[in-house]
Amino acid sequence: MNEEILSKLLTSFQSGDLSLEEVMGKLKILPYEDLNYVKIDHHRAIRQGFPEVVFCQGKTIEQVREIMKHLSRHNRNILATRAIPAMYEAVKSIIPDAHYNELAKLIYVQREDIDIDQERFILVMTAGTSDIPVAEEAAITAEIMGNKVERVYDVGVAGIHRLFSQQHIIEKANVLIVAAGMEGALASVVGGLVAKPIIAVPTSVGYGANFNGLSALLCMLNSCAAGISVVNIDNGFGAGRLASMINHMR
Amino acid sequence: MNEEILSKLLTSFQSGDLSLEEVMGKLKILPYEDLNYVKIDHHRAIRQGFPEVVFCQGKTIEQVREIMKHLSRHNRNILATRAIPAMYEAVKSIIPDAHYNELAKLIYVQREDIDIDQERFILVMTAGTSDIPVAEEAAITAEIMGNKVERVYDVGVAGIHRLFSQQHIIEKANVLIVAAGMEGALASVVGGLVAKPIIAVPTSVGYGANFNGLSALLCMLNSCAAGISVVNIDNGFGAGRLASMINHMR
Amino acid sequence: MNEEILSKLLTSFQSGDLSLEEVMGKLKILPYEDLNYVKIDHHRAIRQGFPEVVFCQGKTIEQVREIMKHLSRHNRNILATRAIPAMYEAVKSIIPDAHYNELAKLIYVQREDIDIDQERFILVMTAGTSDIPVAEEAAITAEIMGNKVERVYDVGVAGIHRLFSQQHIIEKANVLIVAAGMEGALASVVGGLVAKPIIAVPTSVGYGANFNGLSALLCMLNSCAAGISVVNIDNGFGAGRLASMINHMR
Amino acid sequence: MNEEILSKLLTSFQSGDLSLEEVMGKLKILPYEDLNYVKIDHHRAIRQGFPEVVFCQGKTIEQVREIMKHLSRHNRNILATRAIPAMYEAVKSIIPDAHYNELAKLIYVQREDIDIDQERFILVMTAGTSDIPVAEEAAITAEIMGNKVERVYDVGVAGIHRLFSQQHIIEKANVLIVAAGMEGALASVVGGLVAKPIIAVPTSVGYGANFNGLSALLCMLNSCAAGISVVNIDNGFGAGRLASMINHMR
Amino acid sequence: MNEEILSKLLTSFQSGDLSLEEVMGKLKILPYEDLNYVKIDHHRAIRQGFPEVVFCQGKTIEQVREIMKHLSRHNRNILATRAIPAMYEAVKSIIPDAHYNELAKLIYVQREDIDIDQERFILVMTAGTSDIPVAEEAAITAEIMGNKVERVYDVGVAGIHRLFSQQHIIEKANVLIVAAGMEGALASVVGGLVAKPIIAVPTSVGYGANFNGLSALLCMLNSCAAGISVVNIDNGFGAGRLASMINHMR
Amino acid sequence: MNEEILSKLLTSFQSGDLSLEEVMGKLKILPYEDLNYVKIDHHRAIRQGFPEVVFCQGKTIEQVREIMKHLSRHNRNILATRAIPAMYEAVKSIIPDAHYNELAKLIYVQREDIDIDQERFILVMTAGTSDIPVAEEAAITAEIMGNKVERVYDVGVAGIHRLFSQQHIIEKANVLIVAAGMEGALASVVGGLVAKPIIAVPTSVGYGANFNGLSALLCMLNSCAAGISVVNIDNGFGAGRLASMINHMR
Amino acid sequence: MNEEILSKLLTSFQSGDLSLEEVMGKLKILPYEDLNYVKIDHHRAIRQGFPEVVFCQGKTIEQVREIMKHLSRHNRNILATRAIPAMYEAVKSIIPDAHYNELAKLIYVQREDIDIDQERFILVMTAGTSDIPVAEEAAITAEIMGNKVERVYDVGVAGIHRLFSQQHIIEKANVLIVAAGMEGALASVVGGLVAKPIIAVPTSVGYGANFNGLSALLCMLNSCAAGISVVNIDNGFGAGRLASMINHMR
Amino acid sequence: MNEEILSKLLTSFQSGDLSLEEVMGKLKILPYEDLNYVKIDHHRAIRQGFPEVVFCQGKTIEQVREIMKHLSRHNRNILATRAIPAMYEAVKSIIPDAHYNELAKLIYVQREDIDIDQERFILVMTAGTSDIPVAEEAAITAEIMGNKVERVYDVGVAGIHRLFSQQHIIEKANVLIVAAGMEGALASVVGGLVAKPIIAVPTSVGYGANFNGLSALLCMLNSCAAGISVVNIDNGFGAGRLASMINHMR
Repeated sequence: MNEEILSKLLTSFQSGDLSLEEVMGKLKILPYEDLNYVKIDHHRAIRQGFPEVVFCQGKTIEQVREIMKHLSRHNRNILATRAIPAMYEAVKSIIPDAHYNELAKLIYVQREDIDIDQERFILVMTAGTSDIPVAEEAAITAEIMGNKVERVYDVGVAGIHRLFSQQHIIEKANVLIVAAGMEGALASVVGGLVAKPIIAVPTSVGYGANFNGLSALLCMLNSCAAGISVVNIDNGFGAGRLASMINHMR
Repeated sequence: MNEEILSKLLTSFQSGDLSLEEVMGKLKILPYEDLNYVKIDHHRAIRQGFPEVVFCQGKTIEQVREIMKHLSRHNRNILATRAIPAMYEAVKSIIPDAHYNELAKLIYVQREDIDIDQERFILVMTAGTSDIPVAEEAAITAEIMGNKVERVYDVGVAGIHRLFSQQHIIEKANVLIVAAGMEGALASVVGGLVAKPIIAVPTSVGYGANFNGLSALLCMLNSCAAGISVVNIDNGFGAGRLASMINHMR
Repeated sequence: MNEEILSKLLTSFQSGDLSLEEVMGKLKILPYEDLNYVKIDHHRAIRQGFPEVVFCQGKTIEQVREIMKHLSRHNRNILATRAIPAMYEAVKSIIPDAHYNELAKLIYVQREDIDIDQERFILVMTAGTSDIPVAEEAAITAEIMGNKVERVYDVGVAGIHRLFSQQHIIEKANVLIVAAGMEGALASVVGGLVAKPIIAVPTSVGYGANFNGLSALLCMLNSCAAGISVVNIDNGFGAGRLASMINHMR
Repeated sequence: MNEEILSKLLTSFQSGDLSLEEVMGKLKILPYEDLNYVKIDHHRAIRQGFPEVVFCQGKTIEQVREIMKHLSRHNRNILATRAIPAMYEAVKSIIPDAHYNELAKLIYVQREDIDIDQERFILVMTAGTSDIPVAEEAAITAEIMGNKVERVYDVGVAGIHRLFSQQHIIEKANVLIVAAGMEGALASVVGGLVAKPIIAVPTSVGYGANFNGLSALLCMLNSCAAGISVVNIDNGFGAGRLASMINHMR
Repeated sequence: MNEEILSKLLTSFQSGDLSLEEVMGKLKILPYEDLNYVKIDHHRAIRQGFPEVVFCQGKTIEQVREIMKHLSRHNRNILATRAIPAMYEAVKSIIPDAHYNELAKLIYVQREDIDIDQERFILVMTAGTSDIPVAEEAAITAEIMGNKVERVYDVGVAGIHRLFSQQHIIEKANVLIVAAGMEGALASVVGGLVAKPIIAVPTSVGYGANFNGLSALLCMLNSCAAGISVVNIDNGFGAGRLASMINHMR
Repeated sequence: MNEEILSKLLTSFQSGDLSLEEVMGKLKILPYEDLNYVKIDHHRAIRQGFPEVVFCQGKTIEQVREIMKHLSRHNRNILATRAIPAMYEAVKSIIPDAHYNELAKLIYVQREDIDIDQERFILVMTAGTSDIPVAEEAAITAEIMGNKVERVYDVGVAGIHRLFSQQHIIEKANVLIVAAGMEGALASVVGGLVAKPIIAVPTSVGYGANFNGLSALLCMLNSCAAGISVVNIDNGFGAGRLASMINHMR
Repeated sequence: MNEEILSKLLTSFQSGDLSLEEVMGKLKILPYEDLNYVKIDHHRAIRQGFPEVVFCQGKTIEQVREIMKHLSRHNRNILATRAIPAMYEAVKSIIPDAHYNELAKLIYVQREDIDIDQERFILVMTAGTSDIPVAEEAAITAEIMGNKVERVYDVGVAGIHRLFSQQHIIEKANVLIVAAGMEGALASVVGGLVAKPIIAVPTSVGYGANFNGLSALLCMLNSCAAGISVVNIDNGFGAGRLASMINHMR
Repeated sequence: MNEEILSKLLTSFQSGDLSLEEVMGKLKILPYEDLNYVKIDHHRAIRQGFPEVVFCQGKTIEQVREIMKHLSRHNRNILATRAIPAMYEAVKSIIPDAHYNELAKLIYVQREDIDIDQERFILVMTAGTSDIPVAEEAAITAEIMGNKVERVYDVGVAGIHRLFSQQHIIEKANVLIVAAGMEGALASVVGGLVAKPIIAVPTSVGYGANFNGLSALLCMLNSCAAGISVVNIDNGFGAGRLASMINHMR
């Protein structure tokens, strides 16, 4: 963030030229850092509770490294999604405390501990083993954003007793994320069991008439269970981000 | 069926000019009645175990009445699907023992009792109330073709305890038909509970991203439960016909 | 709900044969009322915080009236969606305190006041005037379920100053519902302004390449703003129900 | 399967605390082995007549090897589908009696002979040469599950005399599997010839407006022949599994 | 056609200023009659062998009447497709020798007999009774354009012996038109029987996953039989027109 | 528009507290009239050169009348699209100088003459007669917004000499609008003839595989001619509005 | 072909036990060579005028080589489509007189000269340079089957004067093949110029909303020009085969 | 261009045999250079203001080099799009003054300076960093064709303050190009801010339900902002070409 602007703003505030409300208002609308090919939204941490997250897919390795470098200067915790190992290598060389989760394709830096409410956890579920990478993207995202996360994997509806044996943990969850490909029916079944918000993540797992996730997407959108909403196919990050938002409400 | 042809065939058989196998072969390939706009396949009863069934949609009332008249002459049990009430009126005027089920849109004549095996029943299930017309098309079709049928309706996965309270009857069924619209998840859940053939019928019940049954169709095709196969959207008749075929196997 | 079962359960509980946890467990899984064509899930009020809601589309007027009659006996507040006026007439004749909102196509009975937290409101927004029926379905659903609701209508992105003039109310909302057809871009823009959960409802408003809501649906699913999830096209009820669920969390 | 649970169950059964029915009921609902990333459903052999089958696509080589290792301990016959050669190598190193069919991409272990009824065979047909891998997945699946299988390949409708020259074997089949890509018309023609259940498998064979199997899928779903139902595109395993189920009915 | 232009052209031709080739060239490119909302292409009879055909769908009754009036002045044989009865009434009032075929929705005037080659006939086939309106549009179009037409209706592949009993006429046809809805497989089977051009007309007959003719369209486009090409869904006229073109080649 | 705000702004401007630039800036962002169900954007005339245009489809007759009443107070020229006759009746009763074009479904009020540059005209073309309603929506929109418009209708590519006979007017046009359904090829051909901007409007005219305008839409988007861009299916208004914008550039 | 069968047939014919008609009938229905994975239809040369053509895509190199070997024994001219160079190498090693056209991906053997009518030629046209591989597949197919072929490439409608400069050759063609991707408009324009059958081949050339050839396919199916029919996307062989069939009619 | 033709034309013009108008007319319709596989439209510079642009995708390296060589002889400024580096190498070897922009995949030669109006600029905007390659294709195309271009990248609607901080430059632009993937909402928001023509370029950036650009395409087509039209997915060149055309109008 442009520090001149910030200091001016705050000086004006101190001198009484600007009220607290006015300063907050300006902070919420104004600044970002312009790298030409990207405009980094540094104060998103203020406006949205977490800094801008880098979506690496479609960016060059260099772009990812540069954006991370700038984010790293102004933020203590940062996150990049859909990162390939080579991107992590590039980031690691300039941000030594960066971590990488290969399964979830996440690069993250966590310099500041966030207080985690151990009573309220987000439950991340998958229908099958192949849905786990998407689920982990969601789970780790939520953890980095300061949430306790529990995992229940491979409980698809074709062997529904596996699901019911987990009913105790399902019922205690505060928010649920359900990642499923193929017919995506798990979200509906879970939706009938609990009265908590469920974020359904269709995955592209499957073949043939799954049409790269379309079947699960349509299934989840048409769920007749209450409390279900849907994010984009394979969008584990979006699910984790939203779950964190809901889990922090009080 | 053209009776001259039949008598010739049988005389040749009696005289030994044709073997039994040859007669059966000819009977399976040869005759139909030509009404110009329709070729009635009278000996389908021999070849397939039930006379040709009339699909009324897209036909005129007159065509339906004429086809039924000709079928009625050569068959004791006949069936017409997707019939509107006016078609039934027309048929009733010439075939007084014709019956009509308005919900299932079926016209049927049942002059001959078929022995029904009371031990093996077909279970017809629906996810919701709105799926019942399709389910009834399946159920009555199967009944007319000589099967015991049980019905379990409105047991969609959003309130899964309703489904499990029916588990005793589900486990005893010999063949199952599952009609469901919206997300169509019922078929998968049932498929995980039993090891019997399940015929899934996607229905066009729903709205929005259900796209006239596409969501349920794709969901059912992608089911990871074993033993599930799928018929066309709203095709209750096809499901009933196939279930009857399987139920009669031994 | 079958009262014998209930009384048995409670007697067992009183006598100490069943713990509180056990009774609650059974209540959550067990009972419903079987009208043959529908299985009414009476204890959903316990399991999910509100009785089963009747989806009228695809049901006959008689079915709606009967289901409402049975629900009305066991619940103080009830709700039916997608109801045409003739359905309301039928319901009204047996439930005199039933109300109807024609725009939102909702029938509802509200015999019990629910405490409403005046500090936390759900904001319902639309991009255009034609999206209002869907928005009202969401808004009234949320109100009946005990939420304060504010409305900001016709603030589509093509005249974005209309949206920004409402920024004060947008920023104060606890949960947001955004109903939009055509390009559905409003959800993304609002998603960039606030850090609260946004439930996006694509509507079928539009023509041509809108393909009955597909354009808004895809747009919303692909939103790069954080905190957005999507329900089915025109599913105002689902959005209202989920918003209520989130708004009651603490 | 957790053996403590099993032994407890069986002891209770022996002592008369549990009836046979109760034990069977528990066995059908309860146990599985939890490898964290996968929940192996060991008693599926009891519930469904064959152990859980491993769908390898989307799993890592290590996951496949581990799952197979655990399945191998508790089952005599096991099956994995969509396995690449490297997966087989990994499995072979720990399960020396594992076999591999590269065309069908199946890994299987067959330590126990299953009685095969030589009178009732499943007929697997293809329209073209390129459909054979899918057909073999179906055929070998059915064989491993204890069925006699006959094959009739490359009898597509564009040279229909090739089909009719096989009529003798077609008529004797108990269940039929028809794999076809492109226009998928073979299922309809065969459906008109016999009164036996036909499982149609659309394949992704073709190009252009075949849209990866969509043309054959739609063709088969719309078949006006009786007795046809459809599984997912290229789902040879599902077809073989269902055919086995039907073939074992009596 | 603008007569001044024509007379000038012809005078120039008579005087030798234009060669025959030049006149024909100009006639093929130049003139039409401009009614403002429609430009009638009168000399299409010269360029294409038959006058412009009026596609009535989407036009007002008045527009149809006016266009037919102008066409009628300059042509002896004229044709209008997709005409509703009210259009025919309007046309009849000004062109008393106009005829109407309600099934095929064709208005036609036939003042000039066209020599018909009795040896070369076009065969029009349908899979079912409901495809007949499309087939009749094709058949009558071909007849009006001077072709002998034979009809073989209701010979769909689900009862293939009905098709084979017609093999004598199929083999003698010079060009074939195959109209079929649902799975559209008839074209492929016929394509395997003969070595003559087959024009496949997918019809919108069917329901569910037929998606208004898409299933038959894709099936026909993917046919692996030789000699098949496809026209638009329900485009009987186009098929008849093209068949006539091919049938007149020598 | 809220007049207090306006007067304050202008007083501040007069007194020098606000510069001209500042006033214009505020006027461009700030005001609209809030009818609750609609927010009328009165100063759009300033920001965009023409007042807000009312899209009537999906609005009630009353809503249309009320919006028009308020627009009519503050603007001299107004326009409403997709209006049915009953809407016009309602508007006419309160705005006597309102006009209606039934073909184009436009209501308009034109109290102020706009200077029209007679040298630069917009050419509106259609491929067929049935495309004219869409074309007229475009043409009248452009005329109301102050443009000279020429029309060339029914010049589809299947009789391309009709198109070339209009080449003189095509070459003189400053901007072109091409409305076409079915295969939509006219835009590409015209695009190859001129070096002026072409706005292609796919129409829903056609049947079968036209899929309600999809064929023309895709065709136009894929045009390899230079200078073509596309608006929504049947969006004559959008084309006319954009053409006017371009035609006024200098 | 099984030679025993053939000799028996011919002996019976010689002895008068079978009439010529009977022999021809049997030859048309009966024999093929069974390689297990493929049934080679040797007498297709009799039934359809050219031996079975091998579609190599989806077959292994070995399968192609074996099929070609067997075809080569019984036929003088043979053709294989969609062959990669490695397939040609394998074929060449056993059939030294095999030729390969890499652009068109065709392997062919031409041992017998076919009389070619020099007066009647097939014209193969493309809209762009990238459509040429598909066009060559069509052209060479037609040449091998005994037709004179002319080529006019890169005459897309965006520079329509290039097309008109070829009008002399277009008008003289007996049958036309038009290969075009992107908007596929060339077929319609050519269809308006001539009264000869046009076989339109949509190609997958293009990007974005071309959706792998869908845009050209829909455009061509919706053509309002007379005499156009369509084959599958990129199906140059099918077009060439059909054109040959039509070109040989007299 | 064939120079003989040109010299004849001009001699005739000089001698008065042809008027200026006639010469211009002929030049606009007549000549191109025929390389067999491509017909180079040399005088497009006259007809359309810029020479033919080479679309390299789908062409071989040799074809690109040859076409560029011929274009280079007759034109001072030339452009090739979608060129891979190897194509540039080949071109560079024969046209040493050729340049390459790897990001935009453009090869260009610029031997002649074009007067650029510094007052009227085209603004190219992107929603994200990944949209920049498409944007650069548009921007450089416009620059080569003689336009001043400004760039504003990474201003997607999810952080709308980044967009508004650029409002000064947005308001001064003469024509705008907006490239956006995912939900593509940027075009609508910008369209509400300015009254200048906006060319929207959907990009294929995104994943899942973005379906390779379909979501952005539909979003943009359905925009309710005025002045927006759409080109093909990823078609930066088309947008730049059209923007240049509009920017040069006066």
